[in-house]
Amino acid sequence: MKFKCEKNVLQEAISIAQKAVTGKSTMPILQGILITAEKDEITLTGSDIDLSIETKISAEVSETGSIVVDSRLFGDIVRKLPNSYIELNSVDSNSIELICEKSKFNLVHMNAEDFPSLPSVDEDTLLSLNQKLLKSMIKGTMFAIAQDETRPILTGVLFEIKNNNLNLVALDGYRLALKRETINYEGDVSAVIPGKTLSEVVKILDEEHEVNITFTSNHTLFNLGKTKIISRLLEGEFIKYNSIIPEEYNLKVTTRRDELLNCIERASLVAKEGNTNLIKLDIEDEYMVITSNSQLGNVREELNIILQGQPLEIAFNSKYLIDVLKIMDEEEIVMELSSSVSPCVIKSKENSNCIYLVLPVRLLNS
Amino acid sequence: MKFKCEKNVLQEAISIAQKAVTGKSTMPILQGILITAEKDEITLTGSDIDLSIETKISAEVSETGSIVVDSRLFGDIVRKLPNSYIELNSVDSNSIELICEKSKFNLVHMNAEDFPSLPSVDEDTLLSLNQKLLKSMIKGTMFAIAQDETRPILTGVLFEIKNNNLNLVALDGYRLALKRETINYEGDVSAVIPGKTLSEVVKILDEEHEVNITFTSNHTLFNLGKTKIISRLLEGEFIKYNSIIPEEYNLKVTTRRDELLNCIERASLVAKEGNTNLIKLDIEDEYMVITSNSQLGNVREELNIILQGQPLEIAFNSKYLIDVLKIMDEEEIVMELSSSVSPCVIKSKENSNCIYLVLPVRLLNS
Repeated sequence: MKFKCEKNVLQEAISIAQKAVTGKSTMPILQGILITAEKDEITLTGSDIDLSIETKISAEVSETGSIVVDSRLFGDIVRKLPNSYIELNSVDSNSIELICEKSKFNLVHMNAEDFPSLPSVDEDTLLSLNQKLLKSMIKGTMFAIAQDETRPILTGVLFEIKNNNLNLVALDGYRLALKRETINYEGDVSAVIPGKTLSEVVKILDEEHEVNITFTSNHTLFNLGKTKIISRLLEGEFIKYNSIIPEEYNLKVTTRRDELLNCIERASLVAKEGNTNLIKLDIEDEYMVITSNSQLGNVREELNIILQGQPLEIAFNSKYLIDVLKIMDEEEIVMELSSSVSPCVIKSKENSNCIYLVLPVRLLNS
Repeated sequence: MKFKCEKNVLQEAISIAQKAVTGKSTMPILQGILITAEKDEITLTGSDIDLSIETKISAEVSETGSIVVDSRLFGDIVRKLPNSYIELNSVDSNSIELICEKSKFNLVHMNAEDFPSLPSVDEDTLLSLNQKLLKSMIKGTMFAIAQDETRPILTGVLFEIKNNNLNLVALDGYRLALKRETINYEGDVSAVIPGKTLSEVVKILDEEHEVNITFTSNHTLFNLGKTKIISRLLEGEFIKYNSIIPEEYNLKVTTRRDELLNCIERASLVAKEGNTNLIKLDIEDEYMVITSNSQLGNVREELNIILQGQPLEIAFNSKYLIDVLKIMDEEEIVMELSSSVSPCVIKSKENSNCIYLVLPVRLLNS
C-alpha cells in the first residue's frame, strides 16, 4: 500500500471513522481504523460491531492495499503534523511508514483480514431527508431515551414510517418525546436505532445536504455520500406509544417557554439539594406559582400564564420538565393537563410536529 | 440583617469568595460563605482555613448583621436570578429570605460566630506589583511545583526578595522554573506560598491594577482593594535553588520555540503509548534530530538550529520539555547544555528574567 493525501482531509476523515471506535472492546482490532487504498481513493473504516462508519477521501494511490492502525495514535499523529501532504507506505508485513515534511513515523499495524466485515445493506429503498431536519428530529427526541438497560428497547429511538409520516419517538417510563415530519416514502417502517448510534450520527450530519436512509430487518444505513454509517437495530417491539399520549385534556396553559424554564430551574435548586427534584405547580387563573422545599429552605416563583379550564395543583420531577423546555426552541408553549395524576402534554403553540409528555409525581397529600 | 444590592455585583463577589471554599472540609461551616452587612457595604468571606478570601461590595444596608449560607446553593440561586435587585433579610434566628422580582427563597443559614476568624495581617510593609506582571510570574513557575506530597515544601512557589529582585521559584526534583523581576522593596523575604493558593490568585488577578502583598512569618496577604486573599505559608526551608542552576555550559542551541515544541509533541505521541515519555535529541551542527520509539513504532523529527559548541546526544522525559516550551511565549529560545547527564537550561533568547532547567534521562547505553 502506498498513497499520498492532504493532511487536513485525512484528519477530517479519521475524526469521522473514529466515532465508531469506542476503545472499550476486548478485541484489539476494534481499536484500529481500517485503511484501504484503491484507485484514486482511500477508505477509512471504524467499527465496534454494533456501529460501523466508513468514509472515503481522494488520494494519489500508487499501490493498493489495506491495513489497520491504532485509531487514537494515528489520529493524534496526523492532527499534530504540519498542514501539508502526508505519504503513507507499507514497509513490510507489519509496519507502515508515514512521512510529512521532516517528520517520519514507523508504525506497527494490524492485519486488514482480521477487521470485521461490514454488514451488507441493499440500498434499494431509500428515505431521503435533509440532514439539518434529521439532526433536529434526533436531538429533539434522543434526550428522552432510557439511561438504564433494564428494558434495552428503550435505549433507542423508534423510527416509524406510517401514512407518509416519519415519527421519531423516545420514552423512558417517565416521559416521552415525539417529533413528526411528512415525507414521501413507499411502505411502512418500524425500526429502533440505538442511542449510541444516533449520538454519533448527529455529530457527523452537516447542515446542507441530503442523507439517504435504508432499513433492513437488522440494520440501518445512513448514506451521506462520502460517508456511510451502518448500525445494528435494537431487537424487540417498541412500546405502543400512541396509547400513552392522551387526546383530551381538562385544562390548557399557554406561557413563555424561557420564563417557565427559568422559574423551574431556580425552584429546582432547592429541591436538588434534597435529591428529590420535586417541584409543585399551582396553576391559577392568570398565573402559576411554582414551589419547592427541602431541609435547606423553600422557594416560591410566580409566572404569568393564560389558563383555559379549571385551576390545578400538580407536582413534577423538575429534571423532566427542564429537559423538555431546554430542547424546545419555541417562544410560546402549551401545556395540556387533566388531573394531578395524569400526564402533562407539552407542545409548541404554533406547530404540531412535536409532542412531549411528562408524568407527574403523586403527592402524599393529594 | 437586611440589605439590597445588584444581582450582577453580588454574583461576581460570590464567585470570588467561593474560590476559597473547597467543599472538601469535614467542618460544615467551611462549605458556607460568611455574609456581613455593615454601613453601605457587605463583605463576603470564604475560607478553608489555609486560604481565606474576602471581598466587599456596595449595598443598601438597612440592618447590619452577619450570617453564613451554603456557598454552592447560594451561588447557584443568585446566578439563576434575573438581572435585577436582590433583597436579603433575616427572617428568624436560623433563616433568611431572598427576594428578586417574583422569586422568593427562604434559606436555612448557619451562625456567623461559628465561622473561623481570619488571621490578622499587619499591612505595614507592602510590596506593590502590577497584577498582570504577577499573574505572568505565577503562571510561568507554578507548573513546575511537585504534584506529590512527599516533600510538602515543594508543593509551593518560593517568593524570594533579595537585592531589589523578586524571584519566584518552583521545582520538583526533575525540573525548575525561575522568574525574576526588579522591584523596590526594603529588606529580604523568603516565603513559600502553596500552589493551591496561587492557582486561585491567578484567577482573581485582573490585568490593570496594582496588588499589595504583605508577608508575615506564617501568612501572606494579597490586597487587591475590594478583595483580600490571605494564605498560610508552607513551613520549612526551600531548597537552595541557586546551587542547582549551572552557570557554565559546553554547547548552546538557538532555535524557534514553536517548531521545537511541535517536533517534541509529535515524537512524544509514540513514546507516550509506551508510558515512558522518553525522547532522544541528537544535536548536530545545523540541525537537531529528535527520535523516540516504543512497541508501537518509532519516529524521527528534524529541526533547524544554530549550534555553538560540540554535538551532543541527550535524552529527556518529553513532558518536562513540553511544559516549559508551552509556558514560554518567546519566538526564539536558547538551550544551554554541558553533557548527556547534566541539566539543560532553557532561556529566552532576548531577556534573562526567566530560567528553566530540565534534568535529562540517563540512557542505558550512554
